[in-house]
Formats: sequence, C-alpha cells, structure tokens
Amino acid sequence: MKGTVGFIGLGVMGKSMALNLLRKGFSLYVYNRTREKAKEVVAAGAKESASPEGLGAHAETIITMVTDAPDVEEVLLGPKGVIHSAKPGQVIIDMSTIPPEAVRTLSKTFAERGVEVMDAPVSGGRSGAVEGTLTIMVGGKKETFERCLPILQAMGSRITHIGSPGCGQVLKACNQILCAVNQIAMAEALSLCHRTGINLNTMHHALTGGAGNSWAFEHLGKKVIERNQKPSFKIHLMQKDLDIVLSAAKRLNLPLPGTALAQVLFRAVQAEEGGGELGIEAMIRAYERMGNFTLRD
Amino acid sequence: MKGTVGFIGLGVMGKSMALNLLRKGFSLYVYNRTREKAKEVVAAGAKESASPEGLGAHAETIITMVTDAPDVEEVLLGPKGVIHSAKPGQVIIDMSTIPPEAVRTLSKTFAERGVEVMDAPVSGGRSGAVEGTLTIMVGGKKETFERCLPILQAMGSRITHIGSPGCGQVLKACNQILCAVNQIAMAEALSLCHRTGINLNTMHHALTGGAGNSWAFEHLGKKVIERNQKPSFKIHLMQKDLDIVLSAAKRLNLPLPGTALAQVLFRAVQAEEGGGELGIEAMIRAYERMGNFTLRD
Repeated sequence: MKGTVGFIGLGVMGKSMALNLLRKGFSLYVYNRTREKAKEVVAAGAKESASPEGLGAHAETIITMVTDAPDVEEVLLGPKGVIHSAKPGQVIIDMSTIPPEAVRTLSKTFAERGVEVMDAPVSGGRSGAVEGTLTIMVGGKKETFERCLPILQAMGSRITHIGSPGCGQVLKACNQILCAVNQIAMAEALSLCHRTGINLNTMHHALTGGAGNSWAFEHLGKKVIERNQKPSFKIHLMQKDLDIVLSAAKRLNLPLPGTALAQVLFRAVQAEEGGGELGIEAMIRAYERMGNFTLRD
Repeated sequence: MKGTVGFIGLGVMGKSMALNLLRKGFSLYVYNRTREKAKEVVAAGAKESASPEGLGAHAETIITMVTDAPDVEEVLLGPKGVIHSAKPGQVIIDMSTIPPEAVRTLSKTFAERGVEVMDAPVSGGRSGAVEGTLTIMVGGKKETFERCLPILQAMGSRITHIGSPGCGQVLKACNQILCAVNQIAMAEALSLCHRTGINLNTMHHALTGGAGNSWAFEHLGKKVIERNQKPSFKIHLMQKDLDIVLSAAKRLNLPLPGTALAQVLFRAVQAEEGGGELGIEAMIRAYERMGNFTLRD
C-alpha cells in the first residue's frame, strides 16, 4: 500500500487525475462540493469525506484541483477547511491555476502549522488528465518535490521543479500566454485560408509539417476543421488565467500586447450566449464575426 | 541519368537545395547574379550558365529561388530571361515567396509559349534546406505536380499539391501568419518568465512538453535562451511576406490584428541598425526595449 492521498475537486480534470492515482495504487480520500461528482471515483475505490477538514484528518498529502483562488482558500481555510485538521508534516499540493501571490500567502499560513504548500499547476487539458500525461510545473522545496514525485508521476509525464512556492504558477502563466497567442496565429491562418477558398484539410496537412506548427494548430486546429464542438479548455477559464498574466504584467510594467489582444478576442466570443463555455479554439468565431464570413459551413 | 534541372538563385536556401538535387543524381545547370555564390555548387558538379536564358536552353525543368516578385520577373522575363529560350513542354517551378497574383500572371505569360509555371514555396528554413526536409506547398496542374515530384522530393519531405497556380503561395502566406504570430507568443512568455526571475532553461524544458509548445518556441526559443546569434529566417524577408499576407487580407476585407501586430513588432526591431538582418526570433528585442529590460545578459 502506498501513502494516503486526499483529493479535493473532482471536476473534468480532477476526476481523471484522481482515477489515475487509484490506478497507481494510492489509497484515496476525496471531497467535492457537489457530491454527485464524487460517485465515479468512489465506485473506483476512493473513500469519500464529508468535508475538507475530515479528509485532511486521514491524508498525509492533500491535493486541491479547483477553479480559482477563492475556491482554494475556501477548501483550505474556510469553516470546514483543511487547516482545522492540519498536522505537522502534511503536504498540500495545489494543482489549480491561481495567482502566484495567493500561493505564497497560503504557504506562509500553513507553515505556521508545520504544513508545506506546493503549487503544481498543469497543462495538457482533458486528454492529458485522462492519459496521465500532464505537464506539471512545481513550486516548493526541492526535497518535498522529490518526496511527492511518485504522486505527481501518477498524473503527469513532464514534471519539473521550478523554484519556491508560487513559481509553478508563474510558469503556468507563461504557458497560458503561449496557448492564448498561438490561438490568434491559428485563427488568422485558418481565416485567410478559408477566404481564399483553399481546402482546410489540405492546409492542415501541409502546414503541420512546417515551421508554423504548434500544439494548438495541430490539435485544436483539427477540431475547428472537423467541426468538433467538444470544448478543449474553456474560454472563461482561460480568461481567468489571462487575468492572472495581465495583472502580473501590470505589476511589472511589462507590455504584453499579444496577450491583451487574445483576451479581447476571447471576450468577443464571450459576447455570444454561452460563448465562455466554448473551448479556446472557438476564438475563430471572433474572426468570423469581424470578417463577416463563416468558416464552419 | 535523371532529367536536367536548371536552378536560379543560390542564396542560403537555394545553395543547399541545389546541392541536394546533385546528391540525388540530377544533372544541374545553375545561374546566380553574384557568380561567386555559384562556386560551391559548381565544385559539387553543377554546370554554370552565364544567363537565365542560357540555362533555359539546357533544362526541361527550371527552378527559381530568389527573393521577391521583381527578382523572379527579372530572371524569367528580363532581357536575358528564361522566356527567350522557352520551349513547349518546359516546366518552371518558382520556389520563392511572392504574391499569388504574380504567379498567376507569370503562368499566363508562359502558357502562351507552352510552358507551365508552378509555384512551390517552402517552409523549414536553413536546416530544412540543408537536410532536404522542407515543407513544399505546390500550386499547378496535378499531373505536372506528379511528374515533378522526384525533383521536389530531393529537397523536401512534406510535399503537398494545394491547387491551381498561386495556391502554394496562399498556403505559404498562411504559414507565415503562424510563424510570425507564434513569435509574439514566444516573446511574451519569455519576457514574463525573465521578469519574474525564473530560469529560462527550466521554463523551456517544462513548457515544450505542454499545450503551449510550437516549432517556434521549441527551436527559436532555444536560440534566444542560448544567445545563439545566427539568424534563422531574416526579419526583412518576413516583413516582405507579411506585406503579401496583409495586402491579401486588405483585398478580402479580412481583419488580421495579430499579424498586423507582428509586423509592428518586427518594425521596432528594424528600427535598430541592422535589425532587419536578424532572425525573426529577435522580436524579443522589441519587448526588451518596450519593457526596459534585457533578457540576454
């Protein structure tokens, strides 16, 4: 039997990550605000806790995978939060995407109880979570990172220790810049191709072999061309991440015009009803409306 | 002995492409305005012609690999141009990057002499040219494309027939959108990473494994981090290509804000002496000046 892990947040990503931990032989306690969402993981062998506090009483390592900083703070510091059952030597691994300074504050608060906080945000989306091939960027003490590596390896394939608490989130911010701005590249290339009447499949085949290729163009470009409506990474979540990027940039007086443009274009998609629930590849809709054409006939 | 090929334009790309044709057993006639540049290819077994017209007299297939539309027109239609020795059945493959409409005009002019013109612009840069792994996007008759395939296969690995003459250039324009805008993504991610004090090598290792990766970030990002000054694809050539993209977009009333931003940022690098001779990865210099920092200490 490997160590006991607590897992809070069984959304699209969290559920698959928790299932991978079970598969790799970890004993798992789970908690999710909406209990319905815990069913599949419990059926696979996890024990369910009625509160984060209760979960913390059983687990040496506690993973949080929720949406935003207030959600992380609620499950860790709220009335039924993990902090009320905190024991020295415990480790909290927050895998959500939140601002680096929120990680640092949590880290200080828990340090007073002898509990370490590591940030370990991920990239790779739903498929990476399902296949256990997430990219994981970790901030925290090097020795704690190494101790927790077997847990992280159950969920990801490229796992890098970046630096002190908060540094994982900084790298996640850099990653989101790449993801968001590569969508601009993809949307503009698809738009020009469509408007000149060239077959989009031919285009995709030709250009994925060249210097213009990207993960975004290869995977999400294909989704657009195939009219696959299943959202990859939702726009409203990307916008939350770009808020983190642009507020860091503001603090640093760092002009990031491309990232700002991406946020504007995603906003144009959010202007449609339900637009925020679409995947980031739906940025093409902003171009369709601006350019008065429909690529997806 | 395979067929005889004429090759006009032995610059950085053309020289390597010509050498690959020789290696694959093609008999080669070459012409370059600056004769000095023909030396290496002649030493490798090519015959040199004193003019494009002279070269055309010997070759069934003539490849042009020069900078811009006026250069292509000079070697094909000028006083000593290929047209003066044109013979029915000859094929001209222009592998330069020029506007699609320039290809269509040349195609019509040569059709009157029974000569076919195909456009076959490439992507993959210097390394693709050296290794014979270029992506080649071809516009022209399907049967002519198939007849010329062995020639193209000597220079490239992903070779796609796109459509009628000019269509290869449209796809090249789409490719250049991807290349240029992916540079914005890369420069902004590197800038934020540097300003937050995280090691750039660590960042590159972590993020090339994730959904933010691109050919640009993987290869040119590495060059920036390693302070490798050897230019990849020069900015002044990219600017010429973006002129082609943006003038097509203008004609189509297609708003391409990301591509326009890329052109502005490259212009800021060109504002430095010699900036246009730097590779496109030097876009980072625009961010360094805007943000008042130096990534390359």
